Amino acid sequence: MKHDIYTVGVDIGGTNTHYAIVDNNGNIVASGNMRTTDYPYSNEFVDKLCDSIHNLIATSGTTGSIVGIGIGAPAVNSRRGCISGATDLPWRNDVPLVKLVEEKLGLPVVISNDANSAAAGEMIYGAAKGLSDFIVLTLGTGVGSGIVCDGILLNGSNGYAGELGHVRFPFAADRECGCGRKGCLETVASARGIVRTAQLLLKGTTVPSSLREIPEVTSKAIGLAAASGDALAMEIIRFTGECVGFACAEFAAMTDPQAIIIFGGVAPAMRLVKEDIENAMEKEVLHVYKGKVKILFSSLPDSDAAILGAASLPLAVGRGKNP
Amino acid sequence: MKHDIYTVGVDIGGTNTHYAIVDNNGNIVASGNMRTTDYPYSNEFVDKLCDSIHNLIATSGTTGSIVGIGIGAPAVNSRRGCISGATDLPWRNDVPLVKLVEEKLGLPVVISNDANSAAAGEMIYGAAKGLSDFIVLTLGTGVGSGIVCDGILLNGSNGYAGELGHVRFPFAADRECGCGRKGCLETVASARGIVRTAQLLLKGTTVPSSLREIPEVTSKAIGLAAASGDALAMEIIRFTGECVGFACAEFAAMTDPQAIIIFGGVAPAMRLVKEDIENAMEKEVLHVYKGKVKILFSSLPDSDAAILGAASLPLAVGRGKNP
Repeated sequence: MKHDIYTVGVDIGGTNTHYAIVDNNGNIVASGNMRTTDYPYSNEFVDKLCDSIHNLIATSGTTGSIVGIGIGAPAVNSRRGCISGATDLPWRNDVPLVKLVEEKLGLPVVISNDANSAAAGEMIYGAAKGLSDFIVLTLGTGVGSGIVCDGILLNGSNGYAGELGHVRFPFAADRECGCGRKGCLETVASARGIVRTAQLLLKGTTVPSSLREIPEVTSKAIGLAAASGDALAMEIIRFTGECVGFACAEFAAMTDPQAIIIFGGVAPAMRLVKEDIENAMEKEVLHVYKGKVKILFSSLPDSDAAILGAASLPLAVGRGKNP
Repeated sequence: MKHDIYTVGVDIGGTNTHYAIVDNNGNIVASGNMRTTDYPYSNEFVDKLCDSIHNLIATSGTTGSIVGIGIGAPAVNSRRGCISGATDLPWRNDVPLVKLVEEKLGLPVVISNDANSAAAGEMIYGAAKGLSDFIVLTLGTGVGSGIVCDGILLNGSNGYAGELGHVRFPFAADRECGCGRKGCLETVASARGIVRTAQLLLKGTTVPSSLREIPEVTSKAIGLAAASGDALAMEIIRFTGECVGFACAEFAAMTDPQAIIIFGGVAPAMRLVKEDIENAMEKEVLHVYKGKVKILFSSLPDSDAAILGAASLPLAVGRGKNP
């Protein structure tokens, strides 16, 4: 075991916090979890988290082989190394996690938001292995992205690089977004966006569909219906895919990626229309990028994607082609 | 002179090629030029260029103090270090400039396109000094951009990062672009785009304007008319500025810049409507970026901007916050 490299991944969520020791092939060798909501004070949370990680390292026999700790969380300010103003977490104060955990555990700590963790995870263990230029588009409750260009996971001046879910497109022009504006990609390509498209089509047409029998239609139900041949559900998913393809064409012009990787709860539905995404992108993209950008799907196991993303951060940050 | 650092900048244009020795404050200490069109064969061009640079270094007393050579050119493939398929240059073959010039002069060579050279120039000598995250928007015959994020001048997988002139916007939806698509920023914000706006307004209204007396209206004439109080010219420039501001709002969501720097022949006209650009951007931008992105203008002298951009490349490439 001496020559292996391990990292610790921590996935802080509104309800639960998971932590795991991961080897450099992306295998989880030990893991644990705690309820985030049990700790109304952030210092108690940090104490407990550090004790738990310390014990996990000791009992797994990886002491001395851990090269760093990666933390994925909402409302991260990666520049300042803290969680700040998270509406989904119990703590209203700034929590300087990097400093606190580094002091307690004596290991380098990297913190990042969910989308950047996803991008790091794909780069180190997943679909982006060996790629220097790619975008991970996280299609879930919302839409986010992590951008890797020239081998660098982009942060930006406030750590807010890659808010591609809030780039606006004509195909969404009429749709109000939670951000207070109209036309954001998120209003179409998120789980909620798919439900909005479904509601429009269910009300606006009389096409028979198994979706009409479901009291509350979800994006997952739409994806399953599409997969089992429901024509209306397929139309919803295809429309979504074509919009994603159009958006990918525009995103290509920003950072010239080798691939755009689709990640998150909506990804399985998007797999059904991979060709439609590709065709829409190729039709719309500027000529210099034609035939150059692959559409890929996350290859991380759904249940472990968040923790693997976090665990990959110490290995992903600081890499780059530029010396 | 021993402790000073110098670079060589080379600006290869369709007609002329300029080269200069530049100190680390952006002062040109020696310079020369040759006619690109005199060399139908690229090997003769490279030979002559290297001889000229060699002599310039010798006569300027900077031998041993040159840290690198930067070359700005059209149709650059920065990954492969060559000029490839330039329609504006005499050579149809690939010209592996980096390899050839490095071999002949024994100095490290960096090659880049005009927009990335501009970004490098602003970073090292100009308006972006001290900034780690910014976008230089080059508004000229066309529209391009150089993006610096986390201190890194982005190249992308083919060296085509930052084709922001060909991101499409609703304000240009009806305008056909030279790229074969519709709606590109370039169709509004380039010199030609401004002329198109002028033609629409001159034909579509009867508002009196000094522009009606000019046989062939240029963007420069429109800018000058606006500066001297012509209301229609001002309306044209203001519309352009509002479109640029809208575009800047979307670009902010990509790489979270501290500033967007306006560069090129259209920049003087845009200075007249700086507030309109800022107001449009602030109105449109996603809340997390509000109040965070500055609109700046190039601070490089127009006549030397290209050569300074090229000279800055050896100092700009390879920098970054990530170690």
